[in-house]
Amino acid sequence: MSLENSNDRRDPEGSVGHVTPQKLVVEQPLRLACGIVLPTHTLVYETYGTLNQSRSNAVLICHALSSNHHAAGVYEDDSKPGWWDHYIGPGKAIDTNRFFVVGVNNIGSCFGSTGPTSVNPETGDPWGANFPPLRARDWVESQKLLMESLNIDCWAAVIGGSLGGMQAMRWSLEHPDKLLNAVVIASSMKLTAQNIAFNEIARRAIKSDPDFCDGHYLLEDKVPLRGLALARMIGHVTYLSDELMGQKFGRDLRMGDLIQGKTDPVEFQIESYLNYQGDKFSDFFDANSYILITKMLDYFDLAREYNHDPVAAFSHAMCNFLVISFSSDWRFSPSRSQEITDALIAAGKSVSYIAIDSEHGHDAFLLPNQRYQDALGGYLSRVADQLEGVAP
Amino acid sequence: MSLENSNDRRDPEGSVGHVTPQKLVVEQPLRLACGIVLPTHTLVYETYGTLNQSRSNAVLICHALSSNHHAAGVYEDDSKPGWWDHYIGPGKAIDTNRFFVVGVNNIGSCFGSTGPTSVNPETGDPWGANFPPLRARDWVESQKLLMESLNIDCWAAVIGGSLGGMQAMRWSLEHPDKLLNAVVIASSMKLTAQNIAFNEIARRAIKSDPDFCDGHYLLEDKVPLRGLALARMIGHVTYLSDELMGQKFGRDLRMGDLIQGKTDPVEFQIESYLNYQGDKFSDFFDANSYILITKMLDYFDLAREYNHDPVAAFSHAMCNFLVISFSSDWRFSPSRSQEITDALIAAGKSVSYIAIDSEHGHDAFLLPNQRYQDALGGYLSRVADQLEGVAP
Repeated sequence: MSLENSNDRRDPEGSVGHVTPQKLVVEQPLRLACGIVLPTHTLVYETYGTLNQSRSNAVLICHALSSNHHAAGVYEDDSKPGWWDHYIGPGKAIDTNRFFVVGVNNIGSCFGSTGPTSVNPETGDPWGANFPPLRARDWVESQKLLMESLNIDCWAAVIGGSLGGMQAMRWSLEHPDKLLNAVVIASSMKLTAQNIAFNEIARRAIKSDPDFCDGHYLLEDKVPLRGLALARMIGHVTYLSDELMGQKFGRDLRMGDLIQGKTDPVEFQIESYLNYQGDKFSDFFDANSYILITKMLDYFDLAREYNHDPVAAFSHAMCNFLVISFSSDWRFSPSRSQEITDALIAAGKSVSYIAIDSEHGHDAFLLPNQRYQDALGGYLSRVADQLEGVAP
Repeated sequence: MSLENSNDRRDPEGSVGHVTPQKLVVEQPLRLACGIVLPTHTLVYETYGTLNQSRSNAVLICHALSSNHHAAGVYEDDSKPGWWDHYIGPGKAIDTNRFFVVGVNNIGSCFGSTGPTSVNPETGDPWGANFPPLRARDWVESQKLLMESLNIDCWAAVIGGSLGGMQAMRWSLEHPDKLLNAVVIASSMKLTAQNIAFNEIARRAIKSDPDFCDGHYLLEDKVPLRGLALARMIGHVTYLSDELMGQKFGRDLRMGDLIQGKTDPVEFQIESYLNYQGDKFSDFFDANSYILITKMLDYFDLAREYNHDPVAAFSHAMCNFLVISFSSDWRFSPSRSQEITDALIAAGKSVSYIAIDSEHGHDAFLLPNQRYQDALGGYLSRVADQLEGVAP
């Protein structure tokens, strides 16, 4: 497998340019947290930047619920950049002139890595609803196999937002000597009852769709589009702030008129927007993956095996931490990041915490924001300085 | 029609005791805001307490999205008290020893008053999805016809929470000389984009259910139970606060175990609770009513006809106002009540505003709370004193 990256590393536009996903078939068995063993599994991934001589400048990007390995750059046949393109590239916060950046699609997802849409070798049919339940630690273990195949011994940083931050935290406990830094953005040590409630409603929306066929819709040549669209709409509202929705849509109408004496149908802009987002999502995401990964979110509880004591948990970590939260994020509120920071401090770890003002809700972790960019870039610049021997 | 109430008016238990719903067939045509005329319509209502000689002590209770005329007391065959029984009764905040209290099920709803499940006399079939779109003002006009049939000239107070508060505000503008007081609880002058978003997801959940049959499920002998349950689950989460859900359910499991090495299904208590609430609701509420009334909520905009100026709107009001909000209510946050209060003050109206600390979210307006009870009771006690000539 090639670790070279064909992009111009000094691209003045700050883009990693054209990228090509790669595929790794991991031949080693992966024992999942549930006890089930995947004899082999496939991981689709992308890399940006160049691995240095000492193979010490690798950064792992962990995706959240619905994204994937395509974190930066563009494909030949698609002008849409990767989901974190604003933050990954030459001269950007995650600087591909200095770091070798790895984006991976995790197992259980639906963008080429082994998941519910893959064929179960034992049956010859798609796994569908029979795909084993997953935990964030399973993603970490699978990512570690990718790491080994890339011949990387230690990540300069493991970085992620939301569920991605959970993976970064789990890395710091499961393989403390395999990362120097964990960047935990808009994340939480465990979901609240309200978080779980929204996830459960989304799952029930999917399961209520007759085309779900108890999760075996692929065998029936059906797709539970209506249920998946609803699930996404529910999620989407919780990723946005009330304030932003007010600014962006307010009570503007897309159709009809609310003056009296009319019976014409009325549609608010926000309704149209949400319906569009739901429908778009249902065209590319897999319903079983949505159920599987929302359950993974619900089940995540960083300190469960540490007697529910996050300080005891983090005492196992050896890396440095950067924790970032966003003011209007009510899905994973700043309080959750403060809990992480408090536990890290109590465990005597090195942690930088920055609370960013943003009106973009949970989605803020994906969006341009100067202060966020400066904080992430500043922190990682120092990491690169240390790797390059510029800083102590 | 009898205005007498057979209850013991000095019931030491503070209950209005057994109650019986009454039915009024309004023979006068009702022109709806959309322009459509209902030639006749039926209203189901209940009364508690006794109308005084001067017919001046009548209080109207306006229900919200999913409730009805049964606000207090119990039916012979059902031990479950009315939805506001804690606040209505002899010696209670809305004191039936002093007030004649009227609870009415509004048109478009599904508890006996004319609505989508009623037969459209023009077709002989249930109205279903063809029931005309409604506005809060239509409920007010219909309530005014009930008022006239009861031979009441002026309400001592019109009281309501949530959508009920919208009716109270609308009463104050449409018929300023027909009420002395408006009590507006956990309400808003208009919904935010986020409010509308949640309502639209609920509506789409209903419409996505194949048993919805484009709203004509009654003709097909079907009921969109799955969609309606989902709609209720979405609503329900937004009525509760994050904090309360954390206290009440946390991450407790109802089934299964999250330790590693298990593949058994896991269910959180909050999942079980929500699913139960959804299923229970779908057994008694009508899907078309849910769509109709959530749209009524979305369309409500107190100051639309007053050049979007709430001060100009409220300048038409003649009654006194009591406005109440609850700290953890994120569906109709205290800011919304403050906006109402600010506009009333700017319009030179008499307004008392009380912000109640509560962890119960939007649902707080339905639940026992000493400070809330004292505020409502204190305000209304003074209203009764004035009616009875005890206070100036």
